[in-house]
Amino acid sequence: MSFDFDAYVAARTRQVNEALDRFTPAATEPPSTLHEAMRYSLLGGGKRIRPLLCLAAAEAVGADDPADVLPTACALEMVHTFSLVHDDLPALDNDDFRRGQPTLHRKYGEAMAILAGDALHTLAFATIATHQRASRAESLLRTLRLFAGALGTFGMVGGQVDDLYYERRDDVTPEVLRHIHARKTGALLNVSLLSGAILADATEAQEEALRTYGEQIGLAFQIVDDILDVVGDDAKLGKPTGSDAKHDKATYPKLFGLDESRRRADRAVQSSLSALDTFDQRAEPLRCFARFVVNREA
Amino acid sequence: MSFDFDAYVAARTRQVNEALDRFTPAATEPPSTLHEAMRYSLLGGGKRIRPLLCLAAAEAVGADDPADVLPTACALEMVHTFSLVHDDLPALDNDDFRRGQPTLHRKYGEAMAILAGDALHTLAFATIATHQRASRAESLLRTLRLFAGALGTFGMVGGQVDDLYYERRDDVTPEVLRHIHARKTGALLNVSLLSGAILADATEAQEEALRTYGEQIGLAFQIVDDILDVVGDDAKLGKPTGSDAKHDKATYPKLFGLDESRRRADRAVQSSLSALDTFDQRAEPLRCFARFVVNREA
Repeated sequence: MSFDFDAYVAARTRQVNEALDRFTPAATEPPSTLHEAMRYSLLGGGKRIRPLLCLAAAEAVGADDPADVLPTACALEMVHTFSLVHDDLPALDNDDFRRGQPTLHRKYGEAMAILAGDALHTLAFATIATHQRASRAESLLRTLRLFAGALGTFGMVGGQVDDLYYERRDDVTPEVLRHIHARKTGALLNVSLLSGAILADATEAQEEALRTYGEQIGLAFQIVDDILDVVGDDAKLGKPTGSDAKHDKATYPKLFGLDESRRRADRAVQSSLSALDTFDQRAEPLRCFARFVVNREA
Repeated sequence: MSFDFDAYVAARTRQVNEALDRFTPAATEPPSTLHEAMRYSLLGGGKRIRPLLCLAAAEAVGADDPADVLPTACALEMVHTFSLVHDDLPALDNDDFRRGQPTLHRKYGEAMAILAGDALHTLAFATIATHQRASRAESLLRTLRLFAGALGTFGMVGGQVDDLYYERRDDVTPEVLRHIHARKTGALLNVSLLSGAILADATEAQEEALRTYGEQIGLAFQIVDDILDVVGDDAKLGKPTGSDAKHDKATYPKLFGLDESRRRADRAVQSSLSALDTFDQRAEPLRCFARFVVNREA
């Protein structure tokens, strides 16, 4: 009996969306425009990749009930959304569309986009500290430390600063590019896997394997993102392609060309699968994710 | 032998400033402009009221060594600074000066101000989760929940949204005004006191007394802030007075006049002192703080 990845993704996505709705204040609750704005960005679609990786990692290490890590899974999506909302702002990437809809600042104004982003940032920490149970409090504190690390100046914020700095420059080496992506995308993907594993009481060897798996799919994910910005379909992506070229950003296709970029993505996926060699069939969702990352069209 | 409040404040402020420097990445560390920008706002002065209240609350409930709560005390200042940096942005209050210096976005640009604010927000949670020891992990998680509550949509961010909404409106009732201030200023002052107390293993009765004390000095603090914006000295304040009137903000002098505002500030300070009746001489710093709040000139 082969594993039905589509059904798995549909079921888990539904769980995540229900939980996100539950953990976010209702739009009827004042200040209602603020809550409405947060919900607009958080619940308006998105592939829920980080929450799903968190749940899949918990399963892979043998969690009794993967739903136990839902608060942390939702916090990952809150943090991801917060960073998108701030990155879209006029002073940063100045993007008008996201997931086929006007960006938050285009719809609610810039002040509300700054504040709603801040509120989602806080809500992520609140959700973990309030709703996430763990067998040991130390696991919870480790999870919070991982989140803070992925977000901070050595993580996403630092990557974004360097990304802005290297716009319109010619001296972007492959090492710089990799370092930017590792922090902008890779850091949070790694935390998605590790937090799920830690909260499900993973062994050190399991954590180490998931760290390798995460690094490699993070790399593949970013390369494919860059490729889709060149060859993707605007309608499927829900945003205009060519945005990186417009900003003259450092990308894999710009550095290596399309063919070599595709080869590098494939190699990274192979490495991620090898890292899971010692896991049993409960890691099947993670294996399917790795293949999905290179084959996606949006 | 009477208590030397000035010497106390000087010594504690030095401790806090040294710790803030230690918990914030060096400006030489990349991304260096980001770290430099964070340090510009965080270490460029300020009265350190929240960290000092945190330390004083720990002392009042009998902490062996109040320096044990320094990481949390510093996190309070990081959170306070983050909110100032974002509130100063052009899309929000559009302020050019803060503590006598150009605001962060005037000095480093808007993108850097948004990102440095985000980084300080994260650094606050990181500092508690990484450096703060507690006799029970549950105290640490409670502290994190209190922080998230004070920051979120029912705390500072929510208060700021309502503050922007009520600019240039005539229907600001005293209840609305009090509700805005309770969230914008009061929530974090309360967390300053409660976190210090909780981490020093306060009893429930002590927590309750500090909650009342905090509410009342928070109220007095905000009223005096509003008064100083009308009658204060630009040079002492380090920012131009009349900013609230320029934005036509809801303030106590606007609603009640200066004399009645002063009476209300005095009454609030008296209530805060009564709340400490059952505390011994170790609460002397807190008592001096309450008197200082109404007598300050900046």
